[in-house]
Amino acid sequence: MTLAPWRSPLARALHRNRSLVYARYFQLATIRADGHPANRTVVFRGFLDNTNQLKMITDARSEKADQIDQNAWGEACWYFPKTREQFRLLGQLTLVRDNCTDAHLLEARARSWQELSDAARVQFAWSNPGVPRDDTGFNPPLPDAITPLSHFCLLLLDSTRIDHLELKGDPQNRSIYSFSDAIGWSMQSVNP
Amino acid sequence: MTLAPWRSPLARALHRNRSLVYARYFQLATIRADGHPANRTVVFRGFLDNTNQLKMITDARSEKADQIDQNAWGEACWYFPKTREQFRLLGQLTLVRDNCTDAHLLEARARSWQELSDAARVQFAWSNPGVPRDDTGFNPPLPDAITPLSHFCLLLLDSTRIDHLELKGDPQNRSIYSFSDAIGWSMQSVNP
Repeated sequence: MTLAPWRSPLARALHRNRSLVYARYFQLATIRADGHPANRTVVFRGFLDNTNQLKMITDARSEKADQIDQNAWGEACWYFPKTREQFRLLGQLTLVRDNCTDAHLLEARARSWQELSDAARVQFAWSNPGVPRDDTGFNPPLPDAITPLSHFCLLLLDSTRIDHLELKGDPQNRSIYSFSDAIGWSMQSVNP
Repeated sequence: MTLAPWRSPLARALHRNRSLVYARYFQLATIRADGHPANRTVVFRGFLDNTNQLKMITDARSEKADQIDQNAWGEACWYFPKTREQFRLLGQLTLVRDNCTDAHLLEARARSWQELSDAARVQFAWSNPGVPRDDTGFNPPLPDAITPLSHFCLLLLDSTRIDHLELKGDPQNRSIYSFSDAIGWSMQSVNP
């Protein structure tokens, strides 16, 4: 695969904002079963090897897993405070569950699990998220560091439209990157 | 009106994060005409007097204005880096355009315009956003400081479900605030 042309400005933003731990967080919008939008902060976990797909992790028991099963479209909004720039990444989401039949993706899921800290892994052993508070379910034994818990999911975003806005210019700069099977990636400068 | 119960933790978060200018930015998810989600960073402009509605501003020529005309639902995701907490605010959006028939809202729109800096106001005189870059359209005269340009919009979010997550606890704390006409606001602690 070739690196998509938006990877280079995104890598630059990540580098220039590396002193802020939360510059690796972005907001992921999905669609609820009733058609309303949903939006939450997630952590960027790098790119899936040799692809332009962003990695995140999630819990199969979370609302977003059900939402993605019903509607795979998502838009990430990633704001970088230090350089004052925003990337909006629109595309399709893939939820890699424990019953995934693609061996390569299952292996990527296991690696994402192994890369977590103990503190991050143990959260997947907590009581069911979103149900009334149950204070007894938050002291589980540490889960195995090699084999993911069954409801641990790798989540991938395969973007086909990226909107990059740099607020620092005067006027600001805005570029739209689009992918089509016929011509691959193209880029257009647009008015901010 | 009474202050909704989530206003107090939100005010606390705003106060504790006040040293970060970007703690007043959040991400607003809406639905595109084709049913896909859209997500972008917006600036919090306070609350509409005597209501629990969040104020933002936007340009009637932007994609989100069309999206909101077709589907008024939105979810704001607001992450506060310093206190490591997130508010998700789901509700209906109201776009206050220049032809709004509600005198009170029109007046609020004019006030929002007047509160902007010259630098922020002049952006509404720039060339059409989102169309191919046109470098001639970014040196307009300063618009009038009292009367808004016609495509300046006040945007309001009237939330009916707020999901407040505090990452700092061990375990974390999560509260859901819901509004119904019959019982007003209620709050439930849920598992994070």
